[in-house]
Amino acid sequence: MTLRDVDNRKAMRNIRLTIAYDGTDFSGWQRQDTDKTKQTKTITRTVQGEIEKALEKIHKTPVTLTGSGRTDAGVHARAQTANFYTPLVRMEAERFISALNSLLPGDIRITEAREVPPDFHSRFSASSRTYRYFFTSGRHALPTETRYALRLRRQPDISLLNDYCRFLRGEFDCTVFASPADKSVSRYRYIYGTYFFIQGDRIVFEIRANAFLWKMVRSVAGTLLFYEEKKYSPKDFYRVITSGKRECAGPTLPPEGLFLWDVEFGVSAVT
Amino acid sequence: MTLRDVDNRKAMRNIRLTIAYDGTDFSGWQRQDTDKTKQTKTITRTVQGEIEKALEKIHKTPVTLTGSGRTDAGVHARAQTANFYTPLVRMEAERFISALNSLLPGDIRITEAREVPPDFHSRFSASSRTYRYFFTSGRHALPTETRYALRLRRQPDISLLNDYCRFLRGEFDCTVFASPADKSVSRYRYIYGTYFFIQGDRIVFEIRANAFLWKMVRSVAGTLLFYEEKKYSPKDFYRVITSGKRECAGPTLPPEGLFLWDVEFGVSAVT
Repeated sequence: MTLRDVDNRKAMRNIRLTIAYDGTDFSGWQRQDTDKTKQTKTITRTVQGEIEKALEKIHKTPVTLTGSGRTDAGVHARAQTANFYTPLVRMEAERFISALNSLLPGDIRITEAREVPPDFHSRFSASSRTYRYFFTSGRHALPTETRYALRLRRQPDISLLNDYCRFLRGEFDCTVFASPADKSVSRYRYIYGTYFFIQGDRIVFEIRANAFLWKMVRSVAGTLLFYEEKKYSPKDFYRVITSGKRECAGPTLPPEGLFLWDVEFGVSAVT
Repeated sequence: MTLRDVDNRKAMRNIRLTIAYDGTDFSGWQRQDTDKTKQTKTITRTVQGEIEKALEKIHKTPVTLTGSGRTDAGVHARAQTANFYTPLVRMEAERFISALNSLLPGDIRITEAREVPPDFHSRFSASSRTYRYFFTSGRHALPTETRYALRLRRQPDISLLNDYCRFLRGEFDCTVFASPADKSVSRYRYIYGTYFFIQGDRIVFEIRANAFLWKMVRSVAGTLLFYEEKKYSPKDFYRVITSGKRECAGPTLPPEGLFLWDVEFGVSAVT
């Protein structure tokens, strides 16, 4: 029996983890199964892969971990959510925190573990995801800033950016922000809110939506800053983002500074 | 001729650098000359050593870099100051920024370079140094926080800490905070100010003094937090720190979270 076998899950306990990680040294969240036919020797370090390895050590059999979203290489997480099924009936859910942390590398930490109903699913039960993008501005990047914030060479106009953000609300056709490689059936997403604010010496961009297209947050932030630098009026910015033309998007920003900040669940999913 | 030869300095230009670094992967600031008689094979990575290597590449001869202070292994810097003498008469001082940054590893960045009078000395001309210690509090440390902040498992009483800080002012016998290995002739230092404040989700301790004993900042912060946890009255705290007894000090805190924040120069030193 393997715990990857879906049929066995109903008899097992469902454990939800909250996970923080420093994405710098990971090829993203998603486990990358090595294709044995290709004899690939490259070992790809992923967050899901590392936690599944730790879970396998605890369970002595492979365990599948389901995450709320697949963060890209280099993207950090303050509170990623994931769940797995366990046959360990006597182990208190909270004990998975220390059990996993003692096996995990220092750039991944489990911050919470709790038992949830059998039908809880980290991806499908999540009602929204919140990302935060941290920026610093200034001529010279400090080495202690560039790991967790993206440096802008100028001081952007936060007020103008927030004028643009008012258009990024509600049911939205995100085609402009979609990577050419994106294969989503629909490019509509429900955006709950986007805004910029100042926190100490950093500029923060926050965006919350029901779900995101691949690399979408980095494209949205890049597009906002691109047109702000060109001093587009809010009206002209609106025309750009509703054009449906990918070529209208600004650059897709690099992953440093981007955090999966939180995953929200509807009331029904946690009771 | 070597640029380490003091006699040649008067004919040369004196360049002052402002340096930021991520101290995590360094054995501190100070170059550690390998003792050839001992056949030591360990290569110690230091900030001074790395910058001197880059200066040597530019000058094709060894160059000595004098720093304002020797930060310990793991301690970061936002604005360390150092100076060196150069015979390159035509190179604008500002050009050393890009010349050095192109040769330096990513965890050191030169943020400023300017020509200063021949008698400017980073250590002796500095009137004071400011350190900042960053703390987070909470049960689980996030991997993206622990590199640049020290985690406290509890929420300290900032108000009580600031009551203690009021005693750490002026000409002060720092014997309690001196490492047993410290060989300073005098343990008096002039403390300009110490205080705690909240910055976003971090607690910051700032201390400015004319100079510091070895590991003193970490001992001061550790002592403040040690007695705050025990809820000592400010009066009792005062008795402890003026006891002259090293055994009264709290633990010397680890270096993560500590930054050499700034080095101040009197007016005479920069004109």
